[in-house]
Amino acid sequence: MISGNTKTVDMIADSLFKRLKNNEFINRRLPSERQLREEYSTTRITLREALALLESRGEIYRELRRGWFIAPPRLVYNPLLRSHFHEMAARQGRQANTEVLSADKISATPLLAQQLQVGTGDTLFCIRRRRRIDGRAVLYVEHYLNPAFFPNLLQEDLTLSLTHLYEKLYNIRYGGVRFTVLPGPLPVFAAPALNVASGSPGICITRINQNQHQQVIDCDHEYWRYDALCINVET
Amino acid sequence: MISGNTKTVDMIADSLFKRLKNNEFINRRLPSERQLREEYSTTRITLREALALLESRGEIYRELRRGWFIAPPRLVYNPLLRSHFHEMAARQGRQANTEVLSADKISATPLLAQQLQVGTGDTLFCIRRRRRIDGRAVLYVEHYLNPAFFPNLLQEDLTLSLTHLYEKLYNIRYGGVRFTVLPGPLPVFAAPALNVASGSPGICITRINQNQHQQVIDCDHEYWRYDALCINVET
Repeated sequence: MISGNTKTVDMIADSLFKRLKNNEFINRRLPSERQLREEYSTTRITLREALALLESRGEIYRELRRGWFIAPPRLVYNPLLRSHFHEMAARQGRQANTEVLSADKISATPLLAQQLQVGTGDTLFCIRRRRRIDGRAVLYVEHYLNPAFFPNLLQEDLTLSLTHLYEKLYNIRYGGVRFTVLPGPLPVFAAPALNVASGSPGICITRINQNQHQQVIDCDHEYWRYDALCINVET
Repeated sequence: MISGNTKTVDMIADSLFKRLKNNEFINRRLPSERQLREEYSTTRITLREALALLESRGEIYRELRRGWFIAPPRLVYNPLLRSHFHEMAARQGRQANTEVLSADKISATPLLAQQLQVGTGDTLFCIRRRRRIDGRAVLYVEHYLNPAFFPNLLQEDLTLSLTHLYEKLYNIRYGGVRFTVLPGPLPVFAAPALNVASGSPGICITRINQNQHQQVIDCDHEYWRYDALCINVET
């Protein structure tokens, strides 16, 4: 592979990084690659590497035939905080929105039975929702609930926070959580809800949640756009 | 988009999942799609969706023109455990290997200066390493160190664990860590070390590490194959 000079790549990436932090670019759009090549008196290869470096850091993204744009900030997700989606977004100055796509009773598959500690074939609630940040669909989530803990939940307004409904209606609060992050291609049932092609890179997060009495009450299968999320853990 | 019946997709995925957990497939290779379609009396679309679902869960992967294979187990990475790479691999019954690609003095870029709390242009140590699990290159990492804490470190055997060298030579232990996970395309300088095309989906993990006295001592930029890693947090 032909590769640009690493030092030059870093310098250009750092310069562009400073310029975008200084809001030098109008409408969150970078100048064309041709113009940037001229500004930095550099080759196409070196410039592309600098842009790819910023892309890998989540600072910019490319739109087909339209060029490079400054990425909207990723939502910072801290698995150690028990914060629900709307609260998490609001704290970061973002606008959240939730749509319910379906809410049904289903039979537990072997995987779900294992996650929820019930028998295969047992009845579960399955709530499918799409969540947006500032209007952009970023998360498709399937909530699987053990109905023993939540009689009649499916009759409620399920655009509301489940955390709130649990507490208000059933006096249930979240306790421990097992949180697993699996990067991978978005499956065909999740991708359309996010307006991307199936197989596009995504993040699958599984949360297995306990109540305050260490009983497993529900399990979320979350499918995120890869570029909407930044996972942060601090000790 | 034409889409298979969701229930059938789930049933086939669950059946395949059970069969692969039971080691029914020889050489970690699934039967051909044609054969699977016949076994399940299903359409190409439905079968593909079931396979894509298992792929998104990290259970199987596809090789160009060779078919579907059972994925090697992902390394489980718990950011709350202060375990170094070789120890983490050994605990999971895996074979780890580290190669040093380069070890140099460099000048801090604005980003590195900010992460390490030094001045732009200050001298840093930069150690680039490639790490393998069971022979497969899974991690390209750039370690940036504040040399004030580690005089003459570059003369040591840098295939060893930095954690061990820090403790043995400088009496420095890790304290707090700021851990950030950013899914995104692998940049051009990281991809070749992992034998993948640049732009392939990857995971960039930044760790900013403090010593036992809450001083920032180093910062790691890790670039992982997306399918080698599973991040796990339990509370």
